[in-house]
Amino acid sequence: MEIRALVGRNVKRFREAKGLSQEQLAFEADLHRTYVSGVERGVRNPTVVIIARLATALGVEPSKLLEL
Amino acid sequence: MEIRALVGRNVKRFREAKGLSQEQLAFEADLHRTYVSGVERGVRNPTVVIIARLATALGVEPSKLLEL
Repeated sequence: MEIRALVGRNVKRFREAKGLSQEQLAFEADLHRTYVSGVERGVRNPTVVIIARLATALGVEPSKLLEL
Repeated sequence: MEIRALVGRNVKRFREAKGLSQEQLAFEADLHRTYVSGVERGVRNPTVVIIARLATALGVEPSKLLEL
């Protein structure tokens, strides 16, 4: 699975499991909502610093967002 | 551990375990040697696409490069 699609799937999965909207996740991770939407759709190419911020907001380890 | 330092530690560890020089890893991952050096020193902020290319060259899953 292409890495951006994989990250998008994982971010969406963990976000929904936590009952957060994209807006809430974006606020927690200090990102724009449209950026979170783009990550989830696999059209963004986030850096590891952004991955770490998303992971913190989702309450998971950063490596979890890149797991198959 | 800050994410860039963590990634740097992991890339170096897997590279050395595979007996590759920075030059060889850079060639395999189609990156510049100085970029690989910067990643290992924790001063670069690679995207997930670059993480995936490094992981492929190292023969590990991308998530492994972000593991504690």
